Amino acid sequence: MAHPEVLFFDVLGTVTDWRGSIAAEAAPFLDRYNATHIDAGAFADDWVGRYDAAVDAVRKGDRAFATLDTLNRENLNASLAAFGLMPSGVAKADLDNLNQAWHRLKPWPDALEALRRLKTRFVIAPLSDGHTRLLVDMAKQAGLPWDTVLGADIFQAYKPMPEVYLKACSLMGVAPQNAMLVAAHAYDLSAARACGLMTAFIRRENAGDPSKPAGSGSRENWDYTAGDLIALAEALEKADRIKPGAV
Amino acid sequence: MAHPEVLFFDVLGTVTDWRGSIAAEAAPFLDRYNATHIDAGAFADDWVGRYDAAVDAVRKGDRAFATLDTLNRENLNASLAAFGLMPSGVAKADLDNLNQAWHRLKPWPDALEALRRLKTRFVIAPLSDGHTRLLVDMAKQAGLPWDTVLGADIFQAYKPMPEVYLKACSLMGVAPQNAMLVAAHAYDLSAARACGLMTAFIRRENAGDPSKPAGSGSRENWDYTAGDLIALAEALEKADRIKPGAV
Repeated sequence: MAHPEVLFFDVLGTVTDWRGSIAAEAAPFLDRYNATHIDAGAFADDWVGRYDAAVDAVRKGDRAFATLDTLNRENLNASLAAFGLMPSGVAKADLDNLNQAWHRLKPWPDALEALRRLKTRFVIAPLSDGHTRLLVDMAKQAGLPWDTVLGADIFQAYKPMPEVYLKACSLMGVAPQNAMLVAAHAYDLSAARACGLMTAFIRRENAGDPSKPAGSGSRENWDYTAGDLIALAEALEKADRIKPGAV
Repeated sequence: MAHPEVLFFDVLGTVTDWRGSIAAEAAPFLDRYNATHIDAGAFADDWVGRYDAAVDAVRKGDRAFATLDTLNRENLNASLAAFGLMPSGVAKADLDNLNQAWHRLKPWPDALEALRRLKTRFVIAPLSDGHTRLLVDMAKQAGLPWDTVLGADIFQAYKPMPEVYLKACSLMGVAPQNAMLVAAHAYDLSAARACGLMTAFIRRENAGDPSKPAGSGSRENWDYTAGDLIALAEALEKADRIKPGAV
């Protein structure tokens, strides 16, 4: 098997628990506005569930590129209204702070150790729909040890648009076959594979888009399939030891 | 004084000793080709001294954007010829390896400690004529703790073109007045200031372009002037303690 030089990581769901992190920040917000009858998990799923349609408008060329800060804020207003809370009744500072929760998504428990191990052998970088500052804030807060950060605003495009994967390879100075995308979502990996990248599927509970049925991506024939990022690191370390010419 | 949120760093000369690092790699190369009569420092200065004219062709629109890997390699061939060594007489692997010396530039002795300290208070990122992969390789090799890396290939432009500074601020999600460029070269700081950024001048011996007379940038009225990056970190830590509203 070919051996990658650069590992790109999906972040929302693969490296971080987006649904859980948003729910954890929604709960005190709902308390503050005396809306404890609203389940924070259901509210988070409604908000996160509006993500794909918003991003899709950019993918289809129906609107100019806008970062997740903008799209999430529009979706937050829609979710508040859907749950009977008027955005105009909420202090702007509280809306700003809740929207910033996307800059504070928490990594899955295996992510930090795995990334530290993978960084010793590979160039590691997020390849996310998040924009650069969002990803930088998240990495600073959580200690994610990226070699560099590639936000959607660099490409002015959202996955699975092929230019995202191809330009990322170009910026990292590698041919696509020397890069691998690590992701918990089959649509992302399929697009990367179509661009020539290697693929690693990570099985994550609760990582999917709540607006879509749960996928069965683990049954596809990816280059690697692993239960978490530490298991992937172990598999790649093993492959490294047995690759032709390895010392 | 305004207080920056993001610090951008010039790399070639400011964070790394480019002339010294190139000379250190040129010496064993010249040995290998029985050219010990050539002074490695003079050879390095000739090579580094061709840098500005090459980059200038891109700045002026006379040629399409090309990374330093390409420009340095062309200049290396010219320097070899200038010293009486025919590039065709040198093994391609040796040329490749010497050209890669730019990915392995060594930081000045104060850089690592200063960047680790500054990273606790600011977002820190290189803003360099180097391309993303060159800067990532250098950071990995030297342990430079960047929050993210902004290579010239992201902008498809070279400093002091204003779009470099302005797009860097946009990617970092800050207004120019909330960002500061840290550099050892007055032309770079002047351009950043014209774009609205704050400026910090670092006095560095031997940091200049060998094709140009040594500058006297330290006499200008920058927001900060410091003898090295640790002195800058100390000045910014002091400003942080006394800024309005600081706890």
